[in-house]
Amino acid sequence: MQRIQQLSRIPSRSQFRFPISPFSSAPIEPPPPLLSIGHVLHASRIFTGQDVAHYAEVTGDYNPVHLDSGFATSVAGFDKGRVVHGMLVASLFPSIIASNFPGAVYVSQDLKFKLPVYVQDEVAAQVQAINIKQIKNRYVVKFTTRCFTNEVSLAVDGEAVAVLPTLHLNE
Amino acid sequence: MQRIQQLSRIPSRSQFRFPISPFSSAPIEPPPPLLSIGHVLHASRIFTGQDVAHYAEVTGDYNPVHLDSGFATSVAGFDKGRVVHGMLVASLFPSIIASNFPGAVYVSQDLKFKLPVYVQDEVAAQVQAINIKQIKNRYVVKFTTRCFTNEVSLAVDGEAVAVLPTLHLNE
Repeated sequence: MQRIQQLSRIPSRSQFRFPISPFSSAPIEPPPPLLSIGHVLHASRIFTGQDVAHYAEVTGDYNPVHLDSGFATSVAGFDKGRVVHGMLVASLFPSIIASNFPGAVYVSQDLKFKLPVYVQDEVAAQVQAINIKQIKNRYVVKFTTRCFTNEVSLAVDGEAVAVLPTLHLNE
Repeated sequence: MQRIQQLSRIPSRSQFRFPISPFSSAPIEPPPPLLSIGHVLHASRIFTGQDVAHYAEVTGDYNPVHLDSGFATSVAGFDKGRVVHGMLVASLFPSIIASNFPGAVYVSQDLKFKLPVYVQDEVAAQVQAINIKQIKNRYVVKFTTRCFTNEVSLAVDGEAVAVLPTLHLNE
């Protein structure tokens, strides 16, 4: 419910750009920022062994490369042990978009898993708007979607398209 | 551990194709099937409201289109209420691949979310091998990846590439 209240609040806040009276003594609150091309949205997360186990339970993906360090190393060649499910890492992208734009609807997502993400790695995810098209009262936005480990290593690359109900960033 | 035992069991079972003695009285067990081009692997699942809530907890994706039927209908236009996270539906693809090939490593996944998948919809997922390339002792396999609702409606379309440790299907 909190998120819905935040969304419904945005139109009324945007009115501060056009106050009814220019002589109003009420403090003028700056309008919420608008998404524009080039804008980068961030999030970072460390996936724990427990996160990976919970994800396996929810999805039914019990691939031992995610759950058994010995197997991950000996069979799949992951020298630091078990790795986070790629699709769990990639879930950061719609999470970032949805937290900034509640009501966003995903249209597509392309993913290239370039480097393993190990359990306990710090993952920095970036979603950058590269195209914005308005269709009626919706916005079709293309984003580049990237995750980095160790701050510089590109682990997951790709693009996503989502339909947003607004370009006002949720605060 | 069970999966590891199953994987390591495969080479010894394949020897049944070449029994040491043609006069052995031991029953000849058929070899495990091999993945080949055109082969389709299936799974089906109904995602419950609880599944969606657990996935939101694990991923941090609390987009109200997944959690609040009223919001999903009024803001996002989903006439039957809240929808399953697209990336949760898409997790069926690596789950299918991993359950048949423990130790599989995902290389890429492209996804097009064509129709909403509602909570309690029955989802039929199909993964079909369309290209197989051997590189040393690994197999790089391209799959089409599709989910259907109501048996005929294509809800998620796409392709995935995974590196498999074997072409023997896990039984």
